[in-house]
Amino acid sequence: MSRTPPNLLTATQEALEAVRSTSPLVQCITNSVVVGFTANALLAVGAAPAMVDVPDEASMFAGVASGLLINLGTCREEQRAAALEAAPAAIAAGTPWVLDPVAVGVLPVRTPLAHHLRDLGPSIVRGNASEILALAELGAGGRGVDSTSSVNDAITAAQLVARVTGGAVAVSGATDLVTDGVSVVRLSNGHPVLTKMTGGGCALGALMAAFAAVTPDSLTAAVTATSVYTVAADLAAERSALPGSFAVALLDALSEVSVDDLAARAVFA
Amino acid sequence: MSRTPPNLLTATQEALEAVRSTSPLVQCITNSVVVGFTANALLAVGAAPAMVDVPDEASMFAGVASGLLINLGTCREEQRAAALEAAPAAIAAGTPWVLDPVAVGVLPVRTPLAHHLRDLGPSIVRGNASEILALAELGAGGRGVDSTSSVNDAITAAQLVARVTGGAVAVSGATDLVTDGVSVVRLSNGHPVLTKMTGGGCALGALMAAFAAVTPDSLTAAVTATSVYTVAADLAAERSALPGSFAVALLDALSEVSVDDLAARAVFA
Amino acid sequence: MSRTPPNLLTATQEALEAVRSTSPLVQCITNSVVVGFTANALLAVGAAPAMVDVPDEASMFAGVASGLLINLGTCREEQRAAALEAAPAAIAAGTPWVLDPVAVGVLPVRTPLAHHLRDLGPSIVRGNASEILALAELGAGGRGVDSTSSVNDAITAAQLVARVTGGAVAVSGATDLVTDGVSVVRLSNGHPVLTKMTGGGCALGALMAAFAAVTPDSLTAAVTATSVYTVAADLAAERSALPGSFAVALLDALSEVSVDDLAARAVFA
Repeated sequence: MSRTPPNLLTATQEALEAVRSTSPLVQCITNSVVVGFTANALLAVGAAPAMVDVPDEASMFAGVASGLLINLGTCREEQRAAALEAAPAAIAAGTPWVLDPVAVGVLPVRTPLAHHLRDLGPSIVRGNASEILALAELGAGGRGVDSTSSVNDAITAAQLVARVTGGAVAVSGATDLVTDGVSVVRLSNGHPVLTKMTGGGCALGALMAAFAAVTPDSLTAAVTATSVYTVAADLAAERSALPGSFAVALLDALSEVSVDDLAARAVFA
Repeated sequence: MSRTPPNLLTATQEALEAVRSTSPLVQCITNSVVVGFTANALLAVGAAPAMVDVPDEASMFAGVASGLLINLGTCREEQRAAALEAAPAAIAAGTPWVLDPVAVGVLPVRTPLAHHLRDLGPSIVRGNASEILALAELGAGGRGVDSTSSVNDAITAAQLVARVTGGAVAVSGATDLVTDGVSVVRLSNGHPVLTKMTGGGCALGALMAAFAAVTPDSLTAAVTATSVYTVAADLAAERSALPGSFAVALLDALSEVSVDDLAARAVFA
Repeated sequence: MSRTPPNLLTATQEALEAVRSTSPLVQCITNSVVVGFTANALLAVGAAPAMVDVPDEASMFAGVASGLLINLGTCREEQRAAALEAAPAAIAAGTPWVLDPVAVGVLPVRTPLAHHLRDLGPSIVRGNASEILALAELGAGGRGVDSTSSVNDAITAAQLVARVTGGAVAVSGATDLVTDGVSVVRLSNGHPVLTKMTGGGCALGALMAAFAAVTPDSLTAAVTATSVYTVAADLAAERSALPGSFAVALLDALSEVSVDDLAARAVFA
C-alpha cells in the first residue's frame, strides 16, 4: 500500500474545502429513481448539479462541465445515446468522468454498454462487489441492484478493471474499498440504514465526479467522496436510523460535515 | 363474505413476517413522479426494488423477479413496450403481477393499453374508484389522477374486473375495498393526508407486488399490503399530518410497523 | 409602477383562498429531477397535479386542465413533442400556461424549442436572470442551471420578453422580479437555502400555473405564486436552514401558509 492514513486524511480535507470553495459543475446522466436525491446530495456537499442527459446536449455539456457521472440504472435509449456521446467528449476535454454500472451482469442492454464504456477508460468506476465482478467479466452480477458477493471477493476484479481503465475503482459495501490497480484503500465508516434507502450508492458516484473535479488523482478523489459521504452517513444515523428520516438527515449532514469531522471520524484501513 | 377478520389478521401478520425474512425482489415499471418514493417504500417494508423498465431487459427480469408492478402513470413509449413484454414473461414464469391503471378513462394512450393488460389477467389490479369504473368500461375516469367517484360506487365494477382477470381488485379511498369477484373485504385505516402527497396509491401498488410474492392468494396479498400500508400511515400521521413530514414519517413507519401494530390497529369490515 | 403593495397583498390573499377552495388541476410537462417534488408542492398548496406528458395525451389534457406548466429541464424527445402539442391546445382552450426555459442559452436542443414556445405567447415565463437574458436573446445563458447574472441585469430582458409574449415574466433570485412589460414588482422574501435544494425554482413555476388558473391577470398570478412560495420558504427556514429538512419543511409550510402570514411577512418593493 503506497499511501498512509495521514496523507489520505489531509487530501480528503483539502478536497472537501476545494469542492465548497469552487462548487464544481457536475453533469449527471443517471437513473430516474435517484435523480432528484442525487442532485440534492451534490448541492448539499457544495457542488452544482446539471442533469443534462439529452443527445446533442450531453456532449456539448461534457466539454464545459467540471465532472461527469454516467449511471446505467434505468438506461433508456436517449440516455444510452447521451452516454455514448458524453464520454468521448469528456475525454477530449479532460473532464473527469465516473461510470456506475448499476445491475450489470446478464441484463442485455446495460451489460454491453457498460463494457464499452469501461473500455473508454473512466476516471473512476463505482459499484457493489457483484457489479465490479461482472464488469471484470469474472461474475454474472448480483440480484437486481443488490450485491450477492462481498467486497473482499471483488478485490482482484477491482484491480483488474483499474488496470484496464487506468483509473480508480471503488467497491461499496459494509467496508468500502478503493484501488487504482496497485494501492488498495479500505474505509470503514457508514451505517446499514444506507441500504434501506434508494440511491445511496448512486449519489456516492455523483460525489466522486465532484471530487474528481478538484482532485487530479482519481484514487484520492474516490477515497475522498467515500469518506465524506460515509462520515456524513454516520452523523445522520445518530439523528435517525429509520430510512425516511435518515435520508433527510443525510442531506443535512452532507451540508454540515466538516474537515474536523473527517479528522475525528474517518476510518481508513 | 368468505373470510373473517381473525383469519385475515393472521394472514397479514404472516405475510409481513415473510416479506421481512425473504426480501422479495420487486420489479417496477412505474411513473417518473413516484419512482423514488416507491423504491424507498419497498425498501422500508423489507422488500428489494428493481426499477428495470427498459425493453429487452424488462421481460428477462420479469422471469427472475419475485413480483412485478406495472403502473401507467407516465407511460412513455419505452415503458409501454417494457410493460407489453414483461406481463407475458411474468405470466410464463409464474411471477405475480400488479396493474395500476393510473388515470385510465379517456386518455388515448394509456386507456387501450390498460384494457389490453387487464385482459392478460394481472394477479391484482389497484386503482381509485374512477379508475376501476373506467377499467370495467362502466365509467369515463376521474379528474386527472383523482377519483370523482366513491369506493362504494365501484363495487360492481371491481367484482366485474376481478372475474375477468381471475385475480383480486383493490379500490383505494377513505375506506379501501378488496375483492376477488366473490369475497369483499373493507379496510378502514389510513389518513386524509395520504391524498396530500404524491405517490401514496402508487407505492401501495408496489407493496401489493411484494406481498403477492409471499402470499399465493391474491386477495390476501392485496388485503395485507393495504393493511400494512394504511396502519403505517396511521402511525405516521400521529407524528405529523403535514404533507412533507408525513411522507418521511410514512417511510419510517413502514420500516417499523409490526405484527402487534396490525393486531392493535387494523380495522377490517 | 401601476400597482401598489396593498392591492397586491389583497390580490395574493384572494388567489391563495381560491386555489385552496377550487383545487385547480395543473398539468405538468417537467423534468425528471424535480417531478416528484413539484407534484408534492402543488398538492401541499392546495392544487391537483397531473403529470401528463405523453404525446397524444398531452394536448387532450391541456384542453381540460386548469393550468399547464412546460419546463425544459430534461427535455427528452417525447416531452418535446408533448410540449409542442400541449401549448397550442392550451391556447385554443384558454388554459393559462407557464414556460420555464431551464438552462436555455447555448444548449442546442432546448434553446430553439424555448424560443419557439416563447413566440407562442405563454401566460407566464419564469426563469433566473441568465435564462431570461438568453430567452430575450440578450445573453448566452448561465452556468448549467445556475444564473451568472443578477436579477437587476435582467429587467430590460424581462420587459422585452413580456412585450413579445403579451404575458408576465418572473425573474427569480435573491430578490424576485415580476413584470408584464410595463409594471415591475419586486419581492424580497425567501431564503438562501432555496438554492441548496433542487427544484426550488421549478416548483415555483408549477405554482404559477396553479395561481394563473384562478387569477385572470398573469402579473398578479406570478406575483402571488412568488409571494406564497417565498413566504412559505421563510416559515420553513425558521424550522431548519439545512437543505434536507428544509425541503420537507417547505412542503409543510406550503400547506400551512395563511392569508395572515402573507399580511405579516410579504415584502413587495
